[in-house]
Amino acid sequence: MSEFALSKDLTTKYDDALAQLPDALGREGFGVLTQIDVQSVFEQKLNLPFRRYRIFGACNPKLAHRALTSNLLAGIMVPCNVILWEKDDGATTLAAVDPTLTPAASSDPAIAELALDVRSRLERVFAAFV
Amino acid sequence: MSEFALSKDLTTKYDDALAQLPDALGREGFGVLTQIDVQSVFEQKLNLPFRRYRIFGACNPKLAHRALTSNLLAGIMVPCNVILWEKDDGATTLAAVDPTLTPAASSDPAIAELALDVRSRLERVFAAFV
Repeated sequence: MSEFALSKDLTTKYDDALAQLPDALGREGFGVLTQIDVQSVFEQKLNLPFRRYRIFGACNPKLAHRALTSNLLAGIMVPCNVILWEKDDGATTLAAVDPTLTPAASSDPAIAELALDVRSRLERVFAAFV
Repeated sequence: MSEFALSKDLTTKYDDALAQLPDALGREGFGVLTQIDVQSVFEQKLNLPFRRYRIFGACNPKLAHRALTSNLLAGIMVPCNVILWEKDDGATTLAAVDPTLTPAASSDPAIAELALDVRSRLERVFAAFV
């Protein structure tokens, strides 16, 4: 784990991890609202090569609704970024934002409580990967 | 401004602000990579009503490339959330993540420098709205 994000080095190949992620998120109540193919964005916009790297925008609608009902500014942390990148050896790193470390969680106790729930769910998602 | 996000109350109507946002972001080098219609998500997933609320995922590809080349974990803060919601009186609030306040910026000086550039651009985007 780094200081500022959840991360885990997997032995799973990138394509396999990519295929497993939506179901692993779904088991913790997260839908995938957005998906960014970073390699493709950099290729198309900058004509620069990059490793395979995907950003999933994961959202648990019930928790997001509670957060936004409590504080409309909580939308700055919706969805949660869950990331996969291909390492040089073909294996994969899985990483995610730690919602408990965000400024919103530090400033608003109601958001802090929801952020703790989200982090626990993300940790269980991470535990499902090897 | 709140403690943990950039925000500005506009007199502009929601539909007009929504229409202006992509161009205003574009003038500061941000593309819109994702867009979440929060009202529609809550209606479809939870069958619950919500105000009109949209989350734009804004990304300046050059700055994102520099951030990710420097630190692969910087993807937890890509794209930047820029948000519009309709207030009860039909006017609009514009809000965005303050990238300089993120844990990534606090932990990594290279990200902190890029975050400052992104925040300046977001402030200019905000200044374009009334």
